[in-house]
Amino acid sequence: MTCTPKESVARLLLDVWSLGDTSAVPDLIAERFTIFHDPGDPWEGQALDQAGYVQRVRESRAPFPDQSFAICDMLEEGEKVAVTWTWKGTHRRPVAGLPASNRLIHMSGATVYSFAGVAIIGHWQISDRLGVFRQLSETPSG
Amino acid sequence: MTCTPKESVARLLLDVWSLGDTSAVPDLIAERFTIFHDPGDPWEGQALDQAGYVQRVRESRAPFPDQSFAICDMLEEGEKVAVTWTWKGTHRRPVAGLPASNRLIHMSGATVYSFAGVAIIGHWQISDRLGVFRQLSETPSG
Repeated sequence: MTCTPKESVARLLLDVWSLGDTSAVPDLIAERFTIFHDPGDPWEGQALDQAGYVQRVRESRAPFPDQSFAICDMLEEGEKVAVTWTWKGTHRRPVAGLPASNRLIHMSGATVYSFAGVAIIGHWQISDRLGVFRQLSETPSG
Repeated sequence: MTCTPKESVARLLLDVWSLGDTSAVPDLIAERFTIFHDPGDPWEGQALDQAGYVQRVRESRAPFPDQSFAICDMLEEGEKVAVTWTWKGTHRRPVAGLPASNRLIHMSGATVYSFAGVAIIGHWQISDRLGVFRQLSETPSG
């Protein structure tokens, strides 16, 4: 059973990234996945195999174990899907040198996923990292 | 003479935002333009008339008078165009409380423009503001 490109992007964001169900990775991600552009992301510019992609999901989710994405909009043309999204997660473990704050952090971003047939072969992404940095740097109000 | 939505987005980024030719605004922008989402942008959430849009262009370009956008990718579906872009500009006047550094600053971002017919009625945008903040905060190496 194959999915449309939009369905695959939705599964990737909601099953893999939100729920941490990495068992779906081989259905969705090509043998080689390239992070074409993702400023501030530790994996920017790298090409990952499926095991590497799973590792990236695990390491990215570790500081925010309850993280979840909500899809705002999706546009498809040719072999690409552009998706805009919001994200939230509770900051439970250190990230970027900052100790766990146990605060709910919000972010938004936009990603263009590239396909070869039904497999996702890479992404070009911008996330609002300045917004996250400001939230993580805030003095707790309590 | 009307343009396709992709041609209109290219004119907006290259003529209006890169060259500062605001005479094209009435051809491209609706009477009411809404900044649906643009975290960190001073106009986020506002609805602007064409004069307000021109004012936004002028104020945004002032710190970086030679700014230019390059389009990476465009996807069109329905009445929307998603565009990914890179940007550069020389920091000639104060911005965000930081004095002019006269350095060339780089940024990238992604924008979804919404249309009603041939007019652009709003955008949803993410820019790599953390990358800009880091460049502006760097100690000059010279």
